[in-house]
Amino acid sequence: MRIFSVDIGGTNIKAGLLDEVGNIHDYVEHPTPESGGPEAVASTILFIKDNIFGSDCAIDGVGVGVAGPVDSDGVVYSPPNFRGWGIIDLKSLLAELLEYPPSRIFVGNDASLAALAEFIRGNGKKANPMVMITVGTGIGGGIVIDGKLLAGKSGFAGELGHMVIDPDGPRCGCGRRGCAEALIAHKGIVRTAWEVLRKDKGSIMWSLIEGRFDRLTPKVVQQAASLGDPAANKVLDIIARRMGTFLANVINLFNPEKIVIGGGIALWSDMIKKARIYAVRQALKPLSDDVRIVRARYIKMAGVVGAAIFAARSLTHSR
Amino acid sequence: MRIFSVDIGGTNIKAGLLDEVGNIHDYVEHPTPESGGPEAVASTILFIKDNIFGSDCAIDGVGVGVAGPVDSDGVVYSPPNFRGWGIIDLKSLLAELLEYPPSRIFVGNDASLAALAEFIRGNGKKANPMVMITVGTGIGGGIVIDGKLLAGKSGFAGELGHMVIDPDGPRCGCGRRGCAEALIAHKGIVRTAWEVLRKDKGSIMWSLIEGRFDRLTPKVVQQAASLGDPAANKVLDIIARRMGTFLANVINLFNPEKIVIGGGIALWSDMIKKARIYAVRQALKPLSDDVRIVRARYIKMAGVVGAAIFAARSLTHSR
Repeated sequence: MRIFSVDIGGTNIKAGLLDEVGNIHDYVEHPTPESGGPEAVASTILFIKDNIFGSDCAIDGVGVGVAGPVDSDGVVYSPPNFRGWGIIDLKSLLAELLEYPPSRIFVGNDASLAALAEFIRGNGKKANPMVMITVGTGIGGGIVIDGKLLAGKSGFAGELGHMVIDPDGPRCGCGRRGCAEALIAHKGIVRTAWEVLRKDKGSIMWSLIEGRFDRLTPKVVQQAASLGDPAANKVLDIIARRMGTFLANVINLFNPEKIVIGGGIALWSDMIKKARIYAVRQALKPLSDDVRIVRARYIKMAGVVGAAIFAARSLTHSR
Repeated sequence: MRIFSVDIGGTNIKAGLLDEVGNIHDYVEHPTPESGGPEAVASTILFIKDNIFGSDCAIDGVGVGVAGPVDSDGVVYSPPNFRGWGIIDLKSLLAELLEYPPSRIFVGNDASLAALAEFIRGNGKKANPMVMITVGTGIGGGIVIDGKLLAGKSGFAGELGHMVIDPDGPRCGCGRRGCAEALIAHKGIVRTAWEVLRKDKGSIMWSLIEGRFDRLTPKVVQQAASLGDPAANKVLDIIARRMGTFLANVINLFNPEKIVIGGGIALWSDMIKKARIYAVRQALKPLSDDVRIVRARYIKMAGVVGAAIFAARSLTHSR
């Protein structure tokens, strides 16, 4: 099977030709158009398909992952990273532009598809239940139970990032206070780093950012921590502890066999190890014995691989 | 089918003879022995079976619900409401005492079984997913997905009460701070009521408890609220708001079609209505449109009905 697989992110559109088990035969990246809304994004996808893979390339289906709530019919609901999208029937839009049957186009939430990728051929292989948590700009989640993605009533289940774990915490993009996303993802790390940095004039981070707050990123903290900077390690510890609380909640809810952690945070060498210690200490006893907390196999390609597997699976089931 | 169904609670053991769909043919209650551990409880169950239902009553199976973590083999792990139990193979213990084949005895967590009861013949009928939350002394949970109870790796899934929603909150029985249970269940209501009451000398609650703190219970707050007492209504509002945060987390995680609320709190007339308003305001938009939040059909009998259905289902599947 040949699947045209697309992962629509806030910064880049990633696209590939993959087979039904997620092997990548061809791959490109293209910046996500900043204006023009979903139509511009769909046009970019058409451009990639025709000009890069060739218009005559025969495909069996299209898989699309997008950062935002997606229902089972391929309708995307006001994705926070794409301003002005509103409610968009992305499946129909793509079908029209690509001149391709909508019954062979499958749209899903990027984090759920990443979970599927890890379950089928990544580090969550065959675990039951398997919970995947992607921590990057935001926090996405996907839950696989008995080999099936947990969809919920309309396909929106798994919004793990919008679990409030501190009602007095910082404001989240969703409007609430203290969601896991606001505390642990990109902005949460930067905010915490700044709070620690302000009080520690001797931190290596000051020279790394050359005194400019806008240069403070999770990567800077990570780099400083690896150089042994006490302030950066303090930030790491605060984030790991919060992540521990978050993971303990996930353990108590799902009694998972495996939690797979993906996204930028998975590249931070000690983060998972530390968060695991806090999580296991905090979760209920018999459940904490069951769980393995591991790093994802896919960091960058999770969405593309997952979207291809999702499309191939859906095509097989609908036959 | 005739099922001998037992619900082992901290205060009472409830037992009944039920059919496979949960119709109750006979029912008794007996105080839970305060000492003697699981052996004393098992003896009481034998006593009920022989002396109340008659030793010659032919049964097809035994269903048992217990407040605490139970694995798929019927082993109970240190249930917090039964001091000194440790890890107990309750299925084997009952099989021995009742002289009944262990393969026809089915032990489950009481809250999970209550969820099954609501799903099969209560107010959560056929909802997918259906999440049941029981708020009483503690908070129990049960999640039904595609008609099946979410078990997790070892049968422990659904510990919704031990979701931390405020890391600065009061200490929970599980050792952590700010679990939903510590904030919303019995102790959380009493603690909150006391904080409000201390500052309001004019509250009706003072006369209801005759000045004695140990008489302050959720029922008192409920009664005072129904009489229009502003302090009691303030307590109700605080609890409803916390419950709203908790329910919004559940909505974002599971995208449920229905959340069924059982336990003592379900009898508090305005609580569910108020909590629903807070929850819907806080959850992510497309998910909050999907969910219905309703009161449980079963308050007192949920465990017994659920245990019977669970046993009957397990017997049918194992044939």
